[in-house]
Amino acid sequence: MLFRQLFDADTSTYTYLLADEATGAAALIDPVLEQAERDLKLLRELGLTLSVVLETHVHADHVTGAGVLRERTGATVVASSRGAPCVDRTVNHGDIVRVGGLEVRVLETPGHTDDSLSFLCERRLFTGDALLIRGTGRTDFQNGDPGQLYDAITRVLFTLPDDTAVYPGHDYAGHAMSTVGEEKQHNPRLAGRTRADFIVLMNALQLPPPRKLDVAVPANRACGHTPPTPSLQA
Amino acid sequence: MLFRQLFDADTSTYTYLLADEATGAAALIDPVLEQAERDLKLLRELGLTLSVVLETHVHADHVTGAGVLRERTGATVVASSRGAPCVDRTVNHGDIVRVGGLEVRVLETPGHTDDSLSFLCERRLFTGDALLIRGTGRTDFQNGDPGQLYDAITRVLFTLPDDTAVYPGHDYAGHAMSTVGEEKQHNPRLAGRTRADFIVLMNALQLPPPRKLDVAVPANRACGHTPPTPSLQA
Repeated sequence: MLFRQLFDADTSTYTYLLADEATGAAALIDPVLEQAERDLKLLRELGLTLSVVLETHVHADHVTGAGVLRERTGATVVASSRGAPCVDRTVNHGDIVRVGGLEVRVLETPGHTDDSLSFLCERRLFTGDALLIRGTGRTDFQNGDPGQLYDAITRVLFTLPDDTAVYPGHDYAGHAMSTVGEEKQHNPRLAGRTRADFIVLMNALQLPPPRKLDVAVPANRACGHTPPTPSLQA
Repeated sequence: MLFRQLFDADTSTYTYLLADEATGAAALIDPVLEQAERDLKLLRELGLTLSVVLETHVHADHVTGAGVLRERTGATVVASSRGAPCVDRTVNHGDIVRVGGLEVRVLETPGHTDDSLSFLCERRLFTGDALLIRGTGRTDFQNGDPGQLYDAITRVLFTLPDDTAVYPGHDYAGHAMSTVGEEKQHNPRLAGRTRADFIVLMNALQLPPPRKLDVAVPANRACGHTPPTPSLQA
């Protein structure tokens, strides 16, 4: 498997490129609108065909490149059935998304948002904003729920082998990856905390709203396109 | 081998952690002063002992964490004999630096600076500011020399197998890694250019001075410590 981690410095967002070298079929997980040209150039240089765009959830902190990449390549946009209505295929827990000969397994990991998915491909786990390195996604909007997030992390992600590599949707401290074993042991929001402790902690965070919330959520429900202004004569 | 890529967003600098899991011995390549606590915490959490700090060169755009890490861990600081006088061990082309059971091979790749080294460990090539992803280091100060850089890249780095992974000292576009084959084919400063072309190109760049040049070079010659003020009575 060809694998690349890409970063958008403005929003500290990670995008991931997975490809089956035998067929040249590629997937991008959580592409960023402003990086679409960079990502298309890399695909061209590596001789890859974008077959699938996977969205971990409807993002509130950046605008997705999914729609633009679909227009430019014909790729299929895949997300949760509780996610953006613009997608081509909705998936549920346990579903497999094929990228050439690669199999990407869908894991439902709600709690940051109600549509949050993680993706597992050959011992690499892409956790979106559910599990971050030494942190978790927040749970205070988009139907977030700290109890649900605790369950998703501890009952789904933490049951994977300890050496499973963890690739999050963001990092703000310069870490690129972790492992399931490391996060079980060292994640300060989770290690040694009960479900009740976690709920108290998350509900007390008092975080400022994400910088791009008002723009990003409606845009991302349209795969990154600004939704048309509703007719005044409706 | 345990491997981690770390990023300093303020200076777009990559630091690399390599470790021999059998012995717990670790090396950091190009640590950044402001990230020393992050790096020490990660070493502790992973149960590693910092044995070596490797410097690719005397940096002009950030201050090294080498000196602080040496004080805190007893690690040996390693660099070129043409580099900072503060180091514990100087190395030359072809030397091996042992990190537990790992072997890191030293490659002299001058031209960005006269002391620039690259390091090779198990098909991972750490190129400092000699070879960047789709770019190269600049050659207009610290005894930089475009002809020398062209030779270092084409006669040393590009003779390694095409699938050798390239990990640079910086990236400004969100790329994390490349390969020797990719850079041979797609690096716009090198692909299809003669040595003479490259010299003309580099000499015409007219780049502004690095933001931290005046502070970073003297500090890095002291492994990240501000050099003492010279006595007025000398």
